[in-house]
Amino acid sequence: MDKKIREDLIDVAMGRADADLVIRNVNVIDVYSQSIFNTDVYIKDGMIASFKSGGKALKEIDAEGMYMAPGLIDAHCHIESSHLSPPEYSNAVVPMGTTTVIADPHEICNVTGLDGFEYMLRASENIPLSVFLMFPSCVPATPFEHSGATLLAEDAEKYIRDERVLGLGEMMNYPGVVNKDKEVMAKLALKEKWNKHIDGHAPSVSGSGLDGYISSGINTDHECETPEELREKVSKGMYVMLREGTACKNVLPLLPGVDEKNARRILFCTDDRQPGSIRDEGALNYGVTLAIRNGLDPILAITMATLNASECYHLEDRGAISPGKRADFLLLKDIKNGIYPEKVFIKGELVAEGQKISTRAKGYDSGKVTGRMNVKDFSRQKLSYKVPSDHVRIIGITPGGVVTSKKEGYIKREKDGEWVHDKEKDVLKLAVIERHHGTGNASTALIEGYGMKHGAVATTIAHDSHNIIVIGDNDDDMMFAVEKLIDIGGGITMFKDGKELMTHTLEIAGLMTNDTADEVAKTLEKMHEIAYSELGVSRAIDPFMTLSFMALPVIPSYKLTDVGLFDVDTFSFVENAL
Amino acid sequence: MDKKIREDLIDVAMGRADADLVIRNVNVIDVYSQSIFNTDVYIKDGMIASFKSGGKALKEIDAEGMYMAPGLIDAHCHIESSHLSPPEYSNAVVPMGTTTVIADPHEICNVTGLDGFEYMLRASENIPLSVFLMFPSCVPATPFEHSGATLLAEDAEKYIRDERVLGLGEMMNYPGVVNKDKEVMAKLALKEKWNKHIDGHAPSVSGSGLDGYISSGINTDHECETPEELREKVSKGMYVMLREGTACKNVLPLLPGVDEKNARRILFCTDDRQPGSIRDEGALNYGVTLAIRNGLDPILAITMATLNASECYHLEDRGAISPGKRADFLLLKDIKNGIYPEKVFIKGELVAEGQKISTRAKGYDSGKVTGRMNVKDFSRQKLSYKVPSDHVRIIGITPGGVVTSKKEGYIKREKDGEWVHDKEKDVLKLAVIERHHGTGNASTALIEGYGMKHGAVATTIAHDSHNIIVIGDNDDDMMFAVEKLIDIGGGITMFKDGKELMTHTLEIAGLMTNDTADEVAKTLEKMHEIAYSELGVSRAIDPFMTLSFMALPVIPSYKLTDVGLFDVDTFSFVENAL
Repeated sequence: MDKKIREDLIDVAMGRADADLVIRNVNVIDVYSQSIFNTDVYIKDGMIASFKSGGKALKEIDAEGMYMAPGLIDAHCHIESSHLSPPEYSNAVVPMGTTTVIADPHEICNVTGLDGFEYMLRASENIPLSVFLMFPSCVPATPFEHSGATLLAEDAEKYIRDERVLGLGEMMNYPGVVNKDKEVMAKLALKEKWNKHIDGHAPSVSGSGLDGYISSGINTDHECETPEELREKVSKGMYVMLREGTACKNVLPLLPGVDEKNARRILFCTDDRQPGSIRDEGALNYGVTLAIRNGLDPILAITMATLNASECYHLEDRGAISPGKRADFLLLKDIKNGIYPEKVFIKGELVAEGQKISTRAKGYDSGKVTGRMNVKDFSRQKLSYKVPSDHVRIIGITPGGVVTSKKEGYIKREKDGEWVHDKEKDVLKLAVIERHHGTGNASTALIEGYGMKHGAVATTIAHDSHNIIVIGDNDDDMMFAVEKLIDIGGGITMFKDGKELMTHTLEIAGLMTNDTADEVAKTLEKMHEIAYSELGVSRAIDPFMTLSFMALPVIPSYKLTDVGLFDVDTFSFVENAL
Repeated sequence: MDKKIREDLIDVAMGRADADLVIRNVNVIDVYSQSIFNTDVYIKDGMIASFKSGGKALKEIDAEGMYMAPGLIDAHCHIESSHLSPPEYSNAVVPMGTTTVIADPHEICNVTGLDGFEYMLRASENIPLSVFLMFPSCVPATPFEHSGATLLAEDAEKYIRDERVLGLGEMMNYPGVVNKDKEVMAKLALKEKWNKHIDGHAPSVSGSGLDGYISSGINTDHECETPEELREKVSKGMYVMLREGTACKNVLPLLPGVDEKNARRILFCTDDRQPGSIRDEGALNYGVTLAIRNGLDPILAITMATLNASECYHLEDRGAISPGKRADFLLLKDIKNGIYPEKVFIKGELVAEGQKISTRAKGYDSGKVTGRMNVKDFSRQKLSYKVPSDHVRIIGITPGGVVTSKKEGYIKREKDGEWVHDKEKDVLKLAVIERHHGTGNASTALIEGYGMKHGAVATTIAHDSHNIIVIGDNDDDMMFAVEKLIDIGGGITMFKDGKELMTHTLEIAGLMTNDTADEVAKTLEKMHEIAYSELGVSRAIDPFMTLSFMALPVIPSYKLTDVGLFDVDTFSFVENAL
């Protein structure tokens, strides 16, 4: 708070100056006392100055007894997963009541390194949504693949002192922490050096392994899957997040672990939410709503989504409706059935009404991070799958999850060992083509459970290194699809019989677009329908999201990186042939 | 946490290295979840490494199922009020379970300015008790008296960046805040500049005046007197402290305002506690005990005295029993009837047992702040009380409080107007003699309700400027008493018929001594008894504490400063004669 604002607020409270705005007759959700009180709220310079001051205001709004809740704080998200640029992400989530997000841009940093971090910082600077960033701690996610960049502690140090950078993003490298990997230790040391925060990521970690992880200074987790896991982590000092993303949904499973006694250490987050989910269900407010509809006290739920996050991340200028805080708030007709704001105010300005944005964030030139495609010598030949045996390893897709099973089977082969597609079996070819450094790397494997009858699907969203991943029954369509993505600088595309069915261009690092959320939602809907009806992809899976996780070598069991087929259970590469 | 400690803790948790100590079979008070769990606690390098790790430890203690609570954090105190040096204060409060205090050294700073702050910082540096300091915000407390120093924002800036200085101490200048006094605004701006904290002091302030005060960035208060006041302050974003001092006792009056819903914003503090109270009742644990005995859930009470304070002041390395936190903890046989620790550990070392200190803090040379007595031209003549009328204003003592009443009466006078003591009336002479700058200032007034029959009592503890204050029925004893204090460099003394009855030397700035708490408690007990039995002071009051508040011009109604008789209600000086 600068000097002038401090003095202005005092003047308004003391009745010596007019407020910019007064909201009359609101029922304030008091997150400090878990209660509600009726008052007027005087706003000046984008901040809350006082209640019932009796002073004047340049503008008045009669809230007619609506509830006033603090703006929601999404404690952990990856904006890239929405396919939207930060301004368009703001336009999408603000109408749903999210006024602050803590975003880890590790997707774009895996592609573009510090250029991506710089872009996310600048593109999110002057938009209604408050975006705080965590500097990604694990780029690349593993040493078993080629990402676009390697971010070291010394890179983090260039940015971590920025006041909008709250610390290091999710430390996924649990083995690196508990085995005291030198570079990981150097990153953790930034916490004390710059008085910052380190987010965790510790799925299923418990017992003394969890103690070691927490001892290192990491104190949040958004990967809990059971109430027992949540309870242990809270008891050991972690802030635990209830995540409700498009893919990962933990609110309902975790809710039985939340009670009035431990709730102060529990937050909400979205992690990854796509534009269609945001439009149809909501953003952070959807997780809060789910919790309320399943029995969590609405005031407590709102407190968890506001004050708790502000305490966890030391965002002391927000998270409550009280004097001296930012005037980021929601007006709500109802809180008993969910959190869908009638009006959203940010810094005292009305920015959305009826869950529609009224003040749009302006776009930002994605300049340096546009395209970023560096593929060397790609040809049909790179898609070759030639094995010395007809008994091979096969990646088994698990519908509804990102874990794969270890399958095996017998295949038809050409004389030279080249795989031949068998129309009677749901086994397709998967290929990953390195796209960052022009290494010319490409690898292939077989995959079961995708359901596609004929054609190819390719995408540059392939966690976490985001190389090109392509699936198909024939090399021609696969080649066309890959060439299309190279040509447009990234996106998602589908080919059949040499014909492009539809393409979603993701010009920002192959991950995001400058299109609006509505446009993206509609594009993805159409593409899903084409994938199901024209390509025959199984309706039990999401054709694009499932594909995008098949290259992620931190989630069991078989995954394919640009280097080859990887057995996550043994943490080693394996041959296709058995 | 430095690099080596982080790695050591991980090694212990992972069973790769021996712990320094394991406490087996403890029932940990889990302040995060408001519950209790039985475990072993492994300690390394003074920190908690893990629970039930199964690893080895160089030393074992079987706690036999005792409770383990985090060390208590006293959220606001003035060490000077104990008359003890910081090391002796540590020796006194640590056995009672206080392991961290947030101390505002405004008493010694009123006498010795930055020398006093430096002394408190250094004398509290290498002792078992963790002492964090707040830089005093209001020295002098008012412009109506001469203190030993004036501390400006630029002085604060020299110290506020120190990691043991958490911010600015209690901002008592409420009018200065809401009227935007330039110097006050400069001090408040340090909050953002150095990312620090500003403590409040807002007795009875409410409504929009409170909003203005809070808008300025102040977010604690330890002066609440009613549950309604507490509730309003919490709802508006303040952390409210339940204070249980030797003089001011707010735990029981405030307790009805505390419930499970607002408790996370409520802390405990002592403000001012004397050695006898600490020995007989306890330190911070006494307030916690009172709350428990009067119905507050013991786990919640412990949480308020630990985690809440650590959250409020961002002391993230303490306040709970969890991996990565300091091993500051108490072992307790019982929590249902109060908090009296069997054993106290600080940084993993046993420092007290059976409420007796076992590892004493070493003394610190008070060098520069010893003595500090600069009185010019003191003589019997300075005690003269000469008025042009026999109808005069009289300060009325209120037993049990520090507020005085405005009295008036008719007195006997000499021909030259000089007051003559009337043995039939309980009216005595009060004088304040400036002792810091050799101004030669002295002033006199009459006072009713002290009860003394014959003699004089003088002290250099006279809030907040700590000039010499003396009370008596005759100028000779008063003169002897003042001369004695000048001679020894400060303290408390009593004279009768020219004879010194007893003296308590306070060689550190006239406020503190290097004596132990036991010695001070015994000295004060003896002196109280002499004051009551030999001087006839009313047993309804504390002879020394009451006297020490008669010069404090921020508490109504009549007070005497070195400049003259002050009417706090009208904030102006008044004549003695009516």
